[in-house]
Amino acid sequence: MPKDQKPRRPKAETPKGFRDYFGAEVTERGAMLARIAEVYRHYGFDALETSAVETVEALGKFLPDVDRPNEGVFAWQEEDRDWLALRYDLTAPLARVYAQHRAQLPTPYRRYAMGPVWRNEKPGPGRYRQFYQCDADTVGTPTVAADAEICRMLCDALETLGIARRDYVVRINNRKVLNGVMEAAGVLDPADPDRFMHERGIVLRAIDKLDRLGTEGVRALLGEGRKDESGDYTKGARLSEEQAQVVLGFVEARGATGAETLRNLTDLCGQTQTGAVGIGELTQMAELLEAGAYGTDRILLDPATVRGLGYYTGPVFEAELTFEILGEDGKPRQFGSVAGGGRYDDLVKRFTGEAVPATGVSIGVDRLLAALRAKGQVAHEEPGPVVVTVMDRDRMADTFAIVADLRNAGIRAEAYLGNPKSFGAQMKYADRRRAPFAIIEGSDEKARGVVQVKDLVAGAQAAQTASLEEWKDRPAQQEVTRADLVAHLQRLLAK
Amino acid sequence: MPKDQKPRRPKAETPKGFRDYFGAEVTERGAMLARIAEVYRHYGFDALETSAVETVEALGKFLPDVDRPNEGVFAWQEEDRDWLALRYDLTAPLARVYAQHRAQLPTPYRRYAMGPVWRNEKPGPGRYRQFYQCDADTVGTPTVAADAEICRMLCDALETLGIARRDYVVRINNRKVLNGVMEAAGVLDPADPDRFMHERGIVLRAIDKLDRLGTEGVRALLGEGRKDESGDYTKGARLSEEQAQVVLGFVEARGATGAETLRNLTDLCGQTQTGAVGIGELTQMAELLEAGAYGTDRILLDPATVRGLGYYTGPVFEAELTFEILGEDGKPRQFGSVAGGGRYDDLVKRFTGEAVPATGVSIGVDRLLAALRAKGQVAHEEPGPVVVTVMDRDRMADTFAIVADLRNAGIRAEAYLGNPKSFGAQMKYADRRRAPFAIIEGSDEKARGVVQVKDLVAGAQAAQTASLEEWKDRPAQQEVTRADLVAHLQRLLAK
Repeated sequence: MPKDQKPRRPKAETPKGFRDYFGAEVTERGAMLARIAEVYRHYGFDALETSAVETVEALGKFLPDVDRPNEGVFAWQEEDRDWLALRYDLTAPLARVYAQHRAQLPTPYRRYAMGPVWRNEKPGPGRYRQFYQCDADTVGTPTVAADAEICRMLCDALETLGIARRDYVVRINNRKVLNGVMEAAGVLDPADPDRFMHERGIVLRAIDKLDRLGTEGVRALLGEGRKDESGDYTKGARLSEEQAQVVLGFVEARGATGAETLRNLTDLCGQTQTGAVGIGELTQMAELLEAGAYGTDRILLDPATVRGLGYYTGPVFEAELTFEILGEDGKPRQFGSVAGGGRYDDLVKRFTGEAVPATGVSIGVDRLLAALRAKGQVAHEEPGPVVVTVMDRDRMADTFAIVADLRNAGIRAEAYLGNPKSFGAQMKYADRRRAPFAIIEGSDEKARGVVQVKDLVAGAQAAQTASLEEWKDRPAQQEVTRADLVAHLQRLLAK
Repeated sequence: MPKDQKPRRPKAETPKGFRDYFGAEVTERGAMLARIAEVYRHYGFDALETSAVETVEALGKFLPDVDRPNEGVFAWQEEDRDWLALRYDLTAPLARVYAQHRAQLPTPYRRYAMGPVWRNEKPGPGRYRQFYQCDADTVGTPTVAADAEICRMLCDALETLGIARRDYVVRINNRKVLNGVMEAAGVLDPADPDRFMHERGIVLRAIDKLDRLGTEGVRALLGEGRKDESGDYTKGARLSEEQAQVVLGFVEARGATGAETLRNLTDLCGQTQTGAVGIGELTQMAELLEAGAYGTDRILLDPATVRGLGYYTGPVFEAELTFEILGEDGKPRQFGSVAGGGRYDDLVKRFTGEAVPATGVSIGVDRLLAALRAKGQVAHEEPGPVVVTVMDRDRMADTFAIVADLRNAGIRAEAYLGNPKSFGAQMKYADRRRAPFAIIEGSDEKARGVVQVKDLVAGAQAAQTASLEEWKDRPAQQEVTRADLVAHLQRLLAK
């Protein structure tokens, strides 16, 4: 029984970068996750839920921002034992699970997972340190059929959520093609793959920021470096102008058709072994997708799509919403990426020493919800329960009986449980609850076997000030017999 | 692009005390949470989801094990800033949320919350450091009608989950009655409530362990202390024999009827002011519950139910499953408590300085699932997808076309994406996936416009060794035209 420490009260605040979600925010996300899970399951993926906590050792350092390899996670040390951390994505735990349980799991192992992940980043506007991911991965097969399947499933999931066929596009590319280009540009030596690794990392992250930085920004990062608007300087990869031109040629290799894009890529790096393999995989994926009617209205070959993560080894893909929404500044803007993924053949190998090819996708559910909300496709609020007011504290059993009748008939309902003295306060409460109806059973109504049904949607404006008598006079109020109450409300709610 | 560190591989292990949940374990818990949420919502409770992370200051130290006030949570310090921690329950975050957002929230505020909580405890068999809670609370009203409502809702939730009317009981009691008894026993001085606080804490926790320790164990803890089986010594409250007798009289005050129990309690502590108030609240709650037909077949007045948490201030309640299950030792045993809660009028006051009465319940979903599984009411596994085998890697588009046809017809289906060379491996895979059927379309089937449908439930035993030819000979295999495949499978799956 803790003592009140009077001199100092704790602050009632969410930690910086975290937030609370109320009502519809919670139920809509839950509904969205359930709908995506249904698509994943339908494709044969099985559920997996790992704990939020992993050993730092098992997680590894695969956050996008490899410039700060020791940051990015929330971590602590167990007394005299391991360092533990909150997972920063759902892929690292999957690699650990597959390595740990592979003897019992089917191969290939298709699994889906959904839940919060945590990033120890500087919080910013609209940027939280806990957010939801919703992933599906196939572990244990090298075939690009697995990558193609995941792209189809991503399209199906987005359409199931109500995103129309031409309101999104899934851009696909292949890291092997990028590596072929790196080789052609002289920043990848097949005989010594570790050489220029640092430079290639800078190139990768520069291309990934093309949307934001534009061609000239990327060119600066391929060369000496770039100062951003805040004055921060990012060191460049120090490529020569000729080398940078090869890389930029790749980024801009998208042709009018997929076939033209593939021809451009072949010109750029078809002569390298890795590049040729990558172009072959990209061709095969596009063919499999088109054969299933997942054609260019949904899937686009786009060399500029590279994904920022270092661990991808083959196909990469990214879903982008193509409709415009109003930004915080009131100007229309593209919403951008809401899902992405790719093939990562070396993550499980960290644990087992054996190559275990894998591929997967992650849907950013919070971003997607924000997009659908901005588009007006998802409601901001949900209707409240019917509120049964309390006229007499000693007749609470009567109030409960009305509420029970409504609930038993499938109507969401509650008794007013605050201080019943002020009727205005009860109406204010019902208003704040967004109650569609309030029920009134005063002692004279009780004696006459009737109740008053108040339509609050019709009468919402007056709710702040009206007295009980004023309320009874409003046209939006009807008297019905107690026996007919349930049927009456069912009729009203069905409208 | 991280380098492989060859000399040392990370261990693929969950941290101690954590575990992974696969397939049905995840989906069944999800289904159970959804069903409980539906009951909570129906009662007018709104969803709230707070982040897993809170400031240590906001969480406060309210873990049941107050003997170790600095332990019990996973905590870490932000760089030059606050200490943060993972929430250990869903009540402490609610108190913080209500204090922070009360101007925008309705009063009373009914909310439900579900999600994992974390306890930094020594892990033991079946005892994990992350587990799910599923709470509903009403904040901002002192009326015991709110407590009664929550007890009704708890009964409804348990019955909605398939727990039959006499397979559970909700025991109710009141901390004010306990305090009245403490006063009668001379371990609570209304003029100086801080006096004997330590002793009362020991008494509370001793009574809470009555089930496990028996009357004599509790008596020892009320007196000098007690050595448990492991040899650990727990210091007692050092009450005199007379004092201990008063407390034990309370614990055993349950009569044959509720009315008799209330008379016994009145004899014990009705003369104290607090005791009389508590008995009044308990009487009122029982009346409200019985008026709604939540009578003694579901609700039981039980003075031995006190709950271990220090912060309760009035009504307390606990749901217990009354059926027997087989324990780990093969012997039948009672399953025990699966949910509990009570009134805590001072938790929000920590933040605001103003009294904010509140009451709530927490359902231990993982325990409840374990009970239903032990009783055979929840399946351990779910059926797998139809597996379409791959006879020819170059005809993957054909395989995908079959899978797409099945999925479009609402049938969960997948293509085999492993190495297709060994047909036996494909059958082993289908077996491990618990696939009800496998589909085979070799090149001759393709030429003839037919497919083979293999009934794997019938043929599961032979799956380990059979060759393709042996499989085709089995009676559990049927040839159907490709055009008729979907309808054929729909007929089989509907059986």
